[in-house]
Amino acid sequence: MTTLPPAVDATPTAGCCAPSGGGLDAQQAADVARTFKALGDPARVRLLSIIAAAPDGQACVCDLTEPVGLSQPTVSHHMRLLTEAGLVTREQRGKWAHYAVAPAARALLAGCADAVLTSA
Amino acid sequence: MTTLPPAVDATPTAGCCAPSGGGLDAQQAADVARTFKALGDPARVRLLSIIAAAPDGQACVCDLTEPVGLSQPTVSHHMRLLTEAGLVTREQRGKWAHYAVAPAARALLAGCADAVLTSA
Repeated sequence: MTTLPPAVDATPTAGCCAPSGGGLDAQQAADVARTFKALGDPARVRLLSIIAAAPDGQACVCDLTEPVGLSQPTVSHHMRLLTEAGLVTREQRGKWAHYAVAPAARALLAGCADAVLTSA
Repeated sequence: MTTLPPAVDATPTAGCCAPSGGGLDAQQAADVARTFKALGDPARVRLLSIIAAAPDGQACVCDLTEPVGLSQPTVSHHMRLLTEAGLVTREQRGKWAHYAVAPAARALLAGCADAVLTSA
């Protein structure tokens, strides 16, 4: 843990609230941030929303390039980050990778929001 | 809008799903990504969680530097991003800025998750 000299006098004074000791620890915060960061990019948000909106809840990577106007390697990179974040699942079918929204995606995002906002 | 030559033949073929036309448009995706990006950083996740965990649901910026081990200018930068994202509110009290979790923070995150995952 990095210990920096205090930039200000943090001693509680009149008009200044007492220090709060709660909140997520560094590892918990890193986990939550990684999930949110996966959706902190407009291209990944669009990709996930396109898959979620597909009639059967899944999409071939070959059908994702045109709507977002990105090359297949770039789309595959974004999809790998979404997969690693647990937001989509990946299935290889012959030449093409198919992606579906992970069943736990909604719960994962809700859990992260809860963790940040209810961390007493 | 950038138009790139297709990196692959997106014509539906056997074993390849039909193109999906749904999903968020570019502006909607940018709005959602900006909110998630605000929490895509461990320091901002910790800061918001510390405020949420405070007994009175608010914290003075002077009490946020020590728990996260960052300088006050850096903390203020992170807090500005959280404020601009609509996740916290800011009130100046004399020398110090005080931050509280925005009443709409939970609904904002839930709405963004819904927008991505239910965008048919």
